Amino acid sequence: MTPARSRDEALRADAADPLAAHRDRFAIPDDSLLYLDGNSLGRPPRAALERIGRVAAEDWAAGLVRSWAKWIDWPRRGGDRLAPLLGARPGEVVLADQTSVNLYKLASAAVAARPGRTAIVTDDANFPSDRYVLDGVAAASGLDVRVAASDPTEGTPTEVVADLLDDRVGLVSLSHAAYRSAALTDLAAVTAAAHDRGALVLWDLSHSAGVVPIDLGDAGADLAVGCTYKYLNGGPGAPAFLYVRADLQDELQQPIRGWFGHRDMFAFEPGYRPAAGVDRFTVGTPPILSLVAAEAGIESVAAAGIDAVRAKSVALTELIVDRHDAWLAPLGFTLGSPRDPARRGGHVAIRHSDAEAITTAAVASGVVADFRSPDSIRLAPSPLYTRFVDVWDACAALRDVVAAGEYRRSPARRRVP
Amino acid sequence: MTPARSRDEALRADAADPLAAHRDRFAIPDDSLLYLDGNSLGRPPRAALERIGRVAAEDWAAGLVRSWAKWIDWPRRGGDRLAPLLGARPGEVVLADQTSVNLYKLASAAVAARPGRTAIVTDDANFPSDRYVLDGVAAASGLDVRVAASDPTEGTPTEVVADLLDDRVGLVSLSHAAYRSAALTDLAAVTAAAHDRGALVLWDLSHSAGVVPIDLGDAGADLAVGCTYKYLNGGPGAPAFLYVRADLQDELQQPIRGWFGHRDMFAFEPGYRPAAGVDRFTVGTPPILSLVAAEAGIESVAAAGIDAVRAKSVALTELIVDRHDAWLAPLGFTLGSPRDPARRGGHVAIRHSDAEAITTAAVASGVVADFRSPDSIRLAPSPLYTRFVDVWDACAALRDVVAAGEYRRSPARRRVP
Repeated sequence: MTPARSRDEALRADAADPLAAHRDRFAIPDDSLLYLDGNSLGRPPRAALERIGRVAAEDWAAGLVRSWAKWIDWPRRGGDRLAPLLGARPGEVVLADQTSVNLYKLASAAVAARPGRTAIVTDDANFPSDRYVLDGVAAASGLDVRVAASDPTEGTPTEVVADLLDDRVGLVSLSHAAYRSAALTDLAAVTAAAHDRGALVLWDLSHSAGVVPIDLGDAGADLAVGCTYKYLNGGPGAPAFLYVRADLQDELQQPIRGWFGHRDMFAFEPGYRPAAGVDRFTVGTPPILSLVAAEAGIESVAAAGIDAVRAKSVALTELIVDRHDAWLAPLGFTLGSPRDPARRGGHVAIRHSDAEAITTAAVASGVVADFRSPDSIRLAPSPLYTRFVDVWDACAALRDVVAAGEYRRSPARRRVP
Repeated sequence: MTPARSRDEALRADAADPLAAHRDRFAIPDDSLLYLDGNSLGRPPRAALERIGRVAAEDWAAGLVRSWAKWIDWPRRGGDRLAPLLGARPGEVVLADQTSVNLYKLASAAVAARPGRTAIVTDDANFPSDRYVLDGVAAASGLDVRVAASDPTEGTPTEVVADLLDDRVGLVSLSHAAYRSAALTDLAAVTAAAHDRGALVLWDLSHSAGVVPIDLGDAGADLAVGCTYKYLNGGPGAPAFLYVRADLQDELQQPIRGWFGHRDMFAFEPGYRPAAGVDRFTVGTPPILSLVAAEAGIESVAAAGIDAVRAKSVALTELIVDRHDAWLAPLGFTLGSPRDPARRGGHVAIRHSDAEAITTAAVASGVVADFRSPDSIRLAPSPLYTRFVDVWDACAALRDVVAAGEYRRSPARRRVP
């Protein structure tokens, strides 16, 4: 599909959009806000708001502790609903904790499962928190961390990762889509390269889950984590997910031995016996109000189908790239994401030396995007609720903000997770 | 106060109760339900339900990612509101993760701060999940775990813990109130004994926070964790809390290096630098919907004042003990909690060889209590919303259930966190 070359063409693209009706499934109080930050916090599905209210008023207030009879299944139920979007099977995914805690648990488990191997491989495009976690896991076990050098726009080629692999590497951990550039790492190829050297692979899917088709099963991937509050629309700080391939579950053991990961949590035994299956990677009582929103968010994507979401996502980001070339490049911007849509996730980064101030001014003018240090503005259309005309108008507004130069007078920094 | 000796006396106690008006601050859809399980899941404050709805509809749906500008302070704000209930100062408490994860982080940090010491001390009355976590921390560092033997009803005397202490012990970790018997450990005395031998102390306050006055500061306690969904009424699986004494914060470092614990999380630096203060013990993005409920729950107790809560709690549990002696002991029950109210937390355990079946039958008859293996029924009045007449009626119903013997026909097990 050729990107729209006029606002009318953008409106026609919306009229022809097979996903257009999904926008009505979201709570959108201000239709004029140009929200391109769904990769940081997705909008609430109406079903999420409805269920939050029902769980609070009925399950908690009326059912009280008796509601645990059903709540206790929700981490697995949510995981099973998410599994098809990741190419995983039922019983391989569970909702639990936050992404960094899950990364810690699974990285620790992987390192313990490869005794004698002394290195972890990651790349410098990985989310900083992931690198902190991996550094911590490595430090605790006396391991080295080898960091593949990425291209800031194009990401990390498989061969650059492969060059760091040898028989001393026990774990490779990378983000599937880079948080800044949206560059996609080749999940299947890196997994195969790591397996060739006997290493396990742990993927962070935070920036791709719900917007890019993922096939963990086909790739033979070992482990994955990710958050549910971005393209999965699970709500602020919603519980994260973790994936452990079925045949690895009983082999691996994570370091935080909590009662939810016990084989018989209500037996109150003095000693820990890890549960069978993916439950052993959970720890404590899950936050139910946030969990029910996460499940509704996952269902918002599942209802549309990931292939349809991806098709529209590519069309939306192609429109951003086209408007970048036409309107923004002449104003000093460069593209911070791969130009090839097959190598790009759900957002487009555009780079500018004044990116932070421009972002602040853009938000003030009703275009919500975010800044990522040192010089990137991330523009993230979320295919279930972002219209082509929204992208058109947001790019036009950004052009106008920069052309007017007003951003130079807005010093305040705006920083969000 | 002498326990009521008739239902009319119980009603008169309610009429004279200075906390009576607090019941109206809770959402109680069914006034006839006799709910004595607030030590497992507290009832929702009306303010919690109202705020959950507002945060979902306004902050999330309308404010979207911009709401992080305020959300980001909530873990510390909630911690500061909780601090006075724990005898802690502002900046010493934060809401984060789940109790077991917090226990893992702080136990690991403590062990690392006492290199060369080879043992952890706990007791067999500690919550099983705590013992699993401590065993895991010990195993990871090649430490021994020494387990003090408790009396199943009376708890663990300080001298039994002290007998296990020597210069090889780096950490003592106990529950303040035992989850089964409600027996209170002497927090100040055990802390002093541990400090005499150079060990750090990590308290689990899950079963005492919000119902028993706690003075971590006066005791010189080092570390503490606990959950907010019991007497603090924070909602199912609400974020837990952790406490680190101010002068220890910059000395300790926890193993899960997440971006919320970074000194400048939005700088996206490649390396981890722990934040100053208690923030360094946090990890990832907090679950906002569950967090706002937790804060409302904490405020529900703070508004009443912990001394008033404790005074009514003692009166309520004294009534349970009195009714146990009058009605239940003749039916084969024995008291599973200390008879001295000064040594007892917020609930009363009563023991019976058929406790599990009796609990199931009691719940079916409208008395919600819980079973704890092998033979205890926990009866937990929550002073903000449990009336004296509720306790009277619940004990009478329990007597009638057992006297009728119907519980022998209810095989179903009911198991809740």
